[in-house]
Amino acid sequence: MLAGPVKVDPRVLQAMTRSVINHRGAEFRKVNADVREGLRYVFQTGGEVAAISGSGTAGLEAVTSSLLRQGDRVLTLVNGKFSERAYDLAKLFAEPTQLEFPWGKPMDVAKVAAALEAGDYRALAVCHNETSTGVTNPLKEIAALCRKHDVLCLADGITSVGGIECRPDEWGVDALVLGSQKCIAAPAGLAGVMVSRRAYEQLHKESAYYLDLKAHIDALRDDEDTPYTPSIPLFLAVREALRLLREEGLENRIARTTKLAGACRAAAKSLGLRLYPDESVASNTVSAVSYPPGIDDSTFRKKLLAEHGVVIAGGQAQLKGKIFRIGHMGICSMDDMRATWAAIETVLADLGHAAPRGAAVEAVEAHA
Amino acid sequence: MLAGPVKVDPRVLQAMTRSVINHRGAEFRKVNADVREGLRYVFQTGGEVAAISGSGTAGLEAVTSSLLRQGDRVLTLVNGKFSERAYDLAKLFAEPTQLEFPWGKPMDVAKVAAALEAGDYRALAVCHNETSTGVTNPLKEIAALCRKHDVLCLADGITSVGGIECRPDEWGVDALVLGSQKCIAAPAGLAGVMVSRRAYEQLHKESAYYLDLKAHIDALRDDEDTPYTPSIPLFLAVREALRLLREEGLENRIARTTKLAGACRAAAKSLGLRLYPDESVASNTVSAVSYPPGIDDSTFRKKLLAEHGVVIAGGQAQLKGKIFRIGHMGICSMDDMRATWAAIETVLADLGHAAPRGAAVEAVEAHA
Repeated sequence: MLAGPVKVDPRVLQAMTRSVINHRGAEFRKVNADVREGLRYVFQTGGEVAAISGSGTAGLEAVTSSLLRQGDRVLTLVNGKFSERAYDLAKLFAEPTQLEFPWGKPMDVAKVAAALEAGDYRALAVCHNETSTGVTNPLKEIAALCRKHDVLCLADGITSVGGIECRPDEWGVDALVLGSQKCIAAPAGLAGVMVSRRAYEQLHKESAYYLDLKAHIDALRDDEDTPYTPSIPLFLAVREALRLLREEGLENRIARTTKLAGACRAAAKSLGLRLYPDESVASNTVSAVSYPPGIDDSTFRKKLLAEHGVVIAGGQAQLKGKIFRIGHMGICSMDDMRATWAAIETVLADLGHAAPRGAAVEAVEAHA
Repeated sequence: MLAGPVKVDPRVLQAMTRSVINHRGAEFRKVNADVREGLRYVFQTGGEVAAISGSGTAGLEAVTSSLLRQGDRVLTLVNGKFSERAYDLAKLFAEPTQLEFPWGKPMDVAKVAAALEAGDYRALAVCHNETSTGVTNPLKEIAALCRKHDVLCLADGITSVGGIECRPDEWGVDALVLGSQKCIAAPAGLAGVMVSRRAYEQLHKESAYYLDLKAHIDALRDDEDTPYTPSIPLFLAVREALRLLREEGLENRIARTTKLAGACRAAAKSLGLRLYPDESVASNTVSAVSYPPGIDDSTFRKKLLAEHGVVIAGGQAQLKGKIFRIGHMGICSMDDMRATWAAIETVLADLGHAAPRGAAVEAVEAHA
């Protein structure tokens, strides 16, 4: 129940055991074509897409290094660990200005508007869903501001695309990145990237080689190919995971994810626990819950694993020891959620947290 | 029978089907530690190693971008498609000078010596085994020249490490890269990198993020971790493939690869075919064979696949249509070699190439 890597369907795991396949042959061209179509579906885009053998960070770097240049001014919106990463990346390839918001709180869109008004930016970078804090940022509103100011809108959709509504074409998002081990429920190792037409036309090859985004897009679209040797098992797995997603339907997947998030929050509250973020911005793919006083993060999570076989995430950076995080994206089921909270309430009780027994499981069941 | 991806043992494929694993947990730390030890074994090094989720090219870029800077002079030795790639990479991050040699011919070490004498280079880039031409370049002699001139020796070992003798510590090679889908016989998607102590001390973080080599080395060594989300299935597969290699023993693997190469060359000659490279520099991991007059590359390879289920590679770039290439690295067996040449001689005969029937299989058997 991590915020990625998430549970993977056996069909997806088995897809990787296909014996050696020539990645420059007809069979793999079909794999590439299927991956491309699947990515266009999950990104809900008629724009350009790429599949890059690497982590989500590799996808973000492909966007940053292929779109921006030294001297380009970028406004990076920061309210968590992963939006900080966008800033670090932008520092390497351009000239970022950080606009910070408190972790766990809603982003103030008016402040973003004022910053765009005041500065002469070429691009803005925003993390749609902050995995470190369990906050969903207002991408739609921010993209609209970008359009108004003719600024490229670069978004990290690593834990949103496929789990939270995201309409880059409609909203005017210029670049969007997903990670294979998140909402599409494939193993870790592949980044999906989408770019708008206007962003595509601005791609350059001056700063990137392996992560040259234009090379990846063009090879996939024109030749059903990849510029460098692909991670063959990941392409096979992602194709199968995207087939599963299509079978369920993106809207159904998002609705189911939303329902799981509701169950998760209700379970936390039933035990007297507080969500870390303001509930108005609480993410539907990952829930961050503050520890009650007296519960030690490491003891708690070790017992969950050792005694119940449940793996959840702790806090990162400044939130280490202060929160725990439950991922509920991809093919996570209500049964998984029930088992997770049954374990959590048992362990919390063992560690002395006073709460009505059975309340969390009951809360989950009320949402099932 | 491609020059990679190569045949993968079912044990290695099955290793990838391990269900979700937390890449920041104890179980995956052990995977990382095992991969590190396995890489140190196959690289025969006491130096630093990294495992990067990406292709061999990603490994080469990690070396180039983390060691060199704009303005650094690099001598790149070019005698094939993959050594050209080293030049392209160096252009992006430094100031390369190309020293060209004819494709398929031995490199003139005296010319390398003269170039190093004449120029003030910080580094030299060389491809140990040119997969595009089936030529093994004299890395040992070139590394010795680099030591003499105090120049960093950066080597592409993508189709040599694990199949052709390569002793970076002893020879004084400063950086060496392998690809998972080559001699270690894992699926495509992971690059192994080795750097010498002196190279390690010169690593910087100014040009790379995802491919920041120091970050990869340090995380793996100090924390049994990776700086970014690893391609989990590839780490599992590579661990298993390196275990298999260790069970066979590196020297035995290299000796077996050498024997397969001998069988392959003998089979080609028995049908009156010419090796593309000078035999003195013919590679032990990939054989490039010139087409006899009148044999069409595409027809030939299509028939091999359709009628015999045998996949071999064609020529690349200027060699397209002129040669075919057979990979014989990793866990390729003498049975595979026999079946391959049985198919080749049948198809060549069908296409009108006059040669004694059965000669190729007999030639392979003489080496078995």
